[in-house]
Amino acid sequence: MKYVVITFHPDKKRVAVPLGSDILTASIKANIFLASSCGGKGMCGRCKVKILDGEFDSEPTGKISESEKKNNIFLACRTFAKGNLEVKIFPETILPSRIAPAIFEKGMEIHVPELLKKTFPIHPLTKKYFLRLPRPSINDNISDIERIYRALKKYDINIHPAVDMPTLRKIPSILRESNWEITVTLDEDNSTILLVEQGDTSKMNYGIAVDVGTTTIVVSLINLNNGETIGSESSFNSQSVYGDDVITRIIYAEKKQGLETLHHLVVSTINELIQNIAKNHSITLNNITSIVAAGNMTMAHLLLKVDPSFLRREPYIPSSNTFPAMFAAEIGIKINPSGIFWTVGGAASYVGGDITAGVLATGMYKEENPNMLIDIGTNGEIVLGDKNWLLCASASAGPAFEGTGVKNGTRAIEGAIQSFKIENGKTKISTIGDKTPMGICGSGYIEIISELFRNGIIDRSGKFTGENEKTRNGEDGREFIVYKGDGRTKDIVITQIDIENLLRAKAAIFAAIFMLLEKSGILWENIEKIYIAGGFGNFLNIKLAISIGLLPQIPEEKFVFVGDTSLAGAKAALVSKEARKISYEIIKNMTYLDLSTEKSYMEEYLGALFIPHTNMERFSLIKK
Amino acid sequence: MKYVVITFHPDKKRVAVPLGSDILTASIKANIFLASSCGGKGMCGRCKVKILDGEFDSEPTGKISESEKKNNIFLACRTFAKGNLEVKIFPETILPSRIAPAIFEKGMEIHVPELLKKTFPIHPLTKKYFLRLPRPSINDNISDIERIYRALKKYDINIHPAVDMPTLRKIPSILRESNWEITVTLDEDNSTILLVEQGDTSKMNYGIAVDVGTTTIVVSLINLNNGETIGSESSFNSQSVYGDDVITRIIYAEKKQGLETLHHLVVSTINELIQNIAKNHSITLNNITSIVAAGNMTMAHLLLKVDPSFLRREPYIPSSNTFPAMFAAEIGIKINPSGIFWTVGGAASYVGGDITAGVLATGMYKEENPNMLIDIGTNGEIVLGDKNWLLCASASAGPAFEGTGVKNGTRAIEGAIQSFKIENGKTKISTIGDKTPMGICGSGYIEIISELFRNGIIDRSGKFTGENEKTRNGEDGREFIVYKGDGRTKDIVITQIDIENLLRAKAAIFAAIFMLLEKSGILWENIEKIYIAGGFGNFLNIKLAISIGLLPQIPEEKFVFVGDTSLAGAKAALVSKEARKISYEIIKNMTYLDLSTEKSYMEEYLGALFIPHTNMERFSLIKK
Repeated sequence: MKYVVITFHPDKKRVAVPLGSDILTASIKANIFLASSCGGKGMCGRCKVKILDGEFDSEPTGKISESEKKNNIFLACRTFAKGNLEVKIFPETILPSRIAPAIFEKGMEIHVPELLKKTFPIHPLTKKYFLRLPRPSINDNISDIERIYRALKKYDINIHPAVDMPTLRKIPSILRESNWEITVTLDEDNSTILLVEQGDTSKMNYGIAVDVGTTTIVVSLINLNNGETIGSESSFNSQSVYGDDVITRIIYAEKKQGLETLHHLVVSTINELIQNIAKNHSITLNNITSIVAAGNMTMAHLLLKVDPSFLRREPYIPSSNTFPAMFAAEIGIKINPSGIFWTVGGAASYVGGDITAGVLATGMYKEENPNMLIDIGTNGEIVLGDKNWLLCASASAGPAFEGTGVKNGTRAIEGAIQSFKIENGKTKISTIGDKTPMGICGSGYIEIISELFRNGIIDRSGKFTGENEKTRNGEDGREFIVYKGDGRTKDIVITQIDIENLLRAKAAIFAAIFMLLEKSGILWENIEKIYIAGGFGNFLNIKLAISIGLLPQIPEEKFVFVGDTSLAGAKAALVSKEARKISYEIIKNMTYLDLSTEKSYMEEYLGALFIPHTNMERFSLIKK
Repeated sequence: MKYVVITFHPDKKRVAVPLGSDILTASIKANIFLASSCGGKGMCGRCKVKILDGEFDSEPTGKISESEKKNNIFLACRTFAKGNLEVKIFPETILPSRIAPAIFEKGMEIHVPELLKKTFPIHPLTKKYFLRLPRPSINDNISDIERIYRALKKYDINIHPAVDMPTLRKIPSILRESNWEITVTLDEDNSTILLVEQGDTSKMNYGIAVDVGTTTIVVSLINLNNGETIGSESSFNSQSVYGDDVITRIIYAEKKQGLETLHHLVVSTINELIQNIAKNHSITLNNITSIVAAGNMTMAHLLLKVDPSFLRREPYIPSSNTFPAMFAAEIGIKINPSGIFWTVGGAASYVGGDITAGVLATGMYKEENPNMLIDIGTNGEIVLGDKNWLLCASASAGPAFEGTGVKNGTRAIEGAIQSFKIENGKTKISTIGDKTPMGICGSGYIEIISELFRNGIIDRSGKFTGENEKTRNGEDGREFIVYKGDGRTKDIVITQIDIENLLRAKAAIFAAIFMLLEKSGILWENIEKIYIAGGFGNFLNIKLAISIGLLPQIPEEKFVFVGDTSLAGAKAALVSKEARKISYEIIKNMTYLDLSTEKSYMEEYLGALFIPHTNMERFSLIKK
């Protein structure tokens, strides 16, 4: 096989790939992650690069304009190397690698931690015990391992935890080199000795909770001795280069080496976050002894390198709803090599561990009256129920509210336009952290649509009504200028296509909410609380979300922002055996409503495509 | 580093080794296993080779005669390559690789299997279940693993066995490719799914029992569905090239890469036996799902690659008395890659799993009256006790009765002199299988010493009394010609040194037997049975063994030959959960008497160095 060398500018990253390789694949090999919603099928037009030098073929695509072509700008996924190439990467095309932790702390992890502390007694997945062993003698010559068992009795551990061979092999020398003072790490049931260390390390026992989102991955570093969160960091899931949604990922996973590639990418993203957060808090990876992940079923399959292909094929069967505890090292997660990895289980192919975690974190599984959890991520999942029953559904909303698949979309990070008003014909924006605007996040889009509709710039179906000084024809059709660039900064717009995407997303979610109520026979007024989880965080304006018909019209005080409940539930499971036990009960109690087999869902969806809805009775307050 | 090539004749095996390597190490690399009692220290003089060509250095040693030196015969362990070498190997120097299975069947596995069948209900370490699963549908869309759990209920398995990730990853495709007909292999507690196979393989479930002796390794192939033995094979433990006894092996294990080397050698020996026996019975390795090993504590440590060095150092601490069940693949044993390896645990550093297995196989742990088990292998271990107590001791007898460390010694294989008489001044021998004599086995040595003593050729201390037509001066001093070679065959002799070795061995064993009685306060006449286990097999003449003072003088009918009880116990543990449970109870109940700290043991030993004993009161019948 002949190889060619591709050099990516401006960083001059070089990579050798087989002759004929596409530039997108080559860029991943060079550890450069380009935006690519469609997963490299030439459909989303996001992975544009400029060829500076060299021979190549590029397939024709409607996503490249004539002027771009003249400037040697092409889609990386449709351009193939015929020799060594020099390729320029545009900064705005690269997936942001890390989301500012400060913002995350403010926006995401609210309410829930306090709630958790009260609910779950601390009993972490892995626990350390310091032991001072008496030195053996002719009169006390029990084996090394029995000596450890005897000392563990001091901590009321009277069973004999198993030891695997790698650990057992190390014990004799560790005991003697440590002067018979050791720290033993046990699993939750004291059934296995995971780790034997020299000296007293019992004060340093840390764990990682991770929310494995389709688009975003968030980790928290937790002190396992007291359950406190030391810090959190997040980053884009670098799998995103192979598509925005789970279906695109599953299709990619079905290709040769596809599963291995996606597995590797998500593991690398998690490892990078762990390394970073550990470094920032001066904690060595060896003192991290366990990790709990919550994610949707596709993410869980990919993370654990389990074939996800049957998830997308009727009758939609996961290989398993729950996964065994395993050594983190077994799937390549870099914490202590004897550290344990545990996954929060899910109820169905499209209601995964992230939702179980959400039910766990909100505590709705133990309430007398029904509550609702709405988790708006790349998919929208909704759970309704109380201590006796739980009913859930999944709406393929798409990642528009996460800022992906929309032209100038972004996550809720610094510089994201989160608020928008039109006053006296003038637009007024505010950004997170009051930084220079760099895109629009989910809550921003809701306010923009609400304001455009209120001001008659778009009609009930979301179409631009006519001419306006801020609307124009852009490269993707009609668009409204949300922010006019100043030369250094670019224009930020919302396009007709964006609006259609956003309305489809809100319609899918609203219709799903409605179906759950209808199926359960619960009335709006009987719902105690609606927990809003997911990327919106604190920024969502409930009134405006109701005004566009994303959320149902019920008293504002019933809405509670709970932030990243997937992360919060993962944390609960990490620090509390009780929470892990409850997670299994939640899965058992949860009934999955498959919307794709519900005829009335499509009708509901079509009705909800309008602002706020075709059936205005449901939004009587707005009508007024 | 410079390498040289060594070619071993007559097989022309070639190997490249660093310049300066010794020939013994090179021969092992070439898969040639030379006898070497001392483990390559130049002390036993057994690893003689002839250098045909090439440059070398050889250290001076008293083990090489002048005429040998002239003939270019040297010790392999003390001869170092200074260039490419041509080396001739003498056939008699090579460790026999396999012991004829027929002999093994006749000599070793007697009485016990029948006894086992009655005692232990069949509940193997690994069990197979055939499942016909209903195909999933939209109305029956539980996960793949739940579908398996549901089907297992048919077999009254109502818990959910765990699945490890490698197995879980394979399940979705296996189910669909097998048309939903699968065979599931579970562990003894139904707590883990080890294996999921397409179709019905439940009729083909086999296991291996293995006796890991210091000198000899024996395997049996067992049908796990009915507990029947399909066949047995044995071979020399190829670790023997690094020394005859456990102490020499431990010292070698302490060298750099020593533990890895010894581990590799014992695993290779076992793998070779398994491959051979499976092939001979047309069984694929994939259908072997579990293996149970019993061996002394040093063998267990080496097999599991656990540092044995603390076993030989006061206060003689094993890393563990019992070892966890593990994947056989984890230690390199080649059966089904998901197959389970289990080790019979031991009571102390010098009373290992082989003795636990012996107590298990003889059933002495449940008897009302005390019984004694004498296992004469490379070490001599003795257990005394009944259902309430067990007392054990270990005597470092050395491997003389196993035919090692004595000039013309051999195992009880075809051609071994097993019986010897002097009638009217003429010697009369018989060999196993009536084949041409090729050496003397343990039972043969006992008869020879008994006859030499009865005829006054040796005195009570074992010394040759004077001239005799059959005694002469050999290269190792005085020797008695047991068999006169006919030109094609060589002379077979017993030397003064051999006799001293054998008397030391019998003294060590007898003194240990006596100490156990004294410590427990049990009288000879109250012992119900004495089980004789180990290499002697059926061939031992009890009367003569008493006459030389190896065995105590009690009625002959109390002696029972039980053959290889280590193997029989390993088999019991393989096929019966009950037996595995009892093995732990035996370990708990067994008290170890450390003879090295017993002052009177040395006195007893010195007294027992004579034929039959200094204290003739103990052998009153013989006196007559």
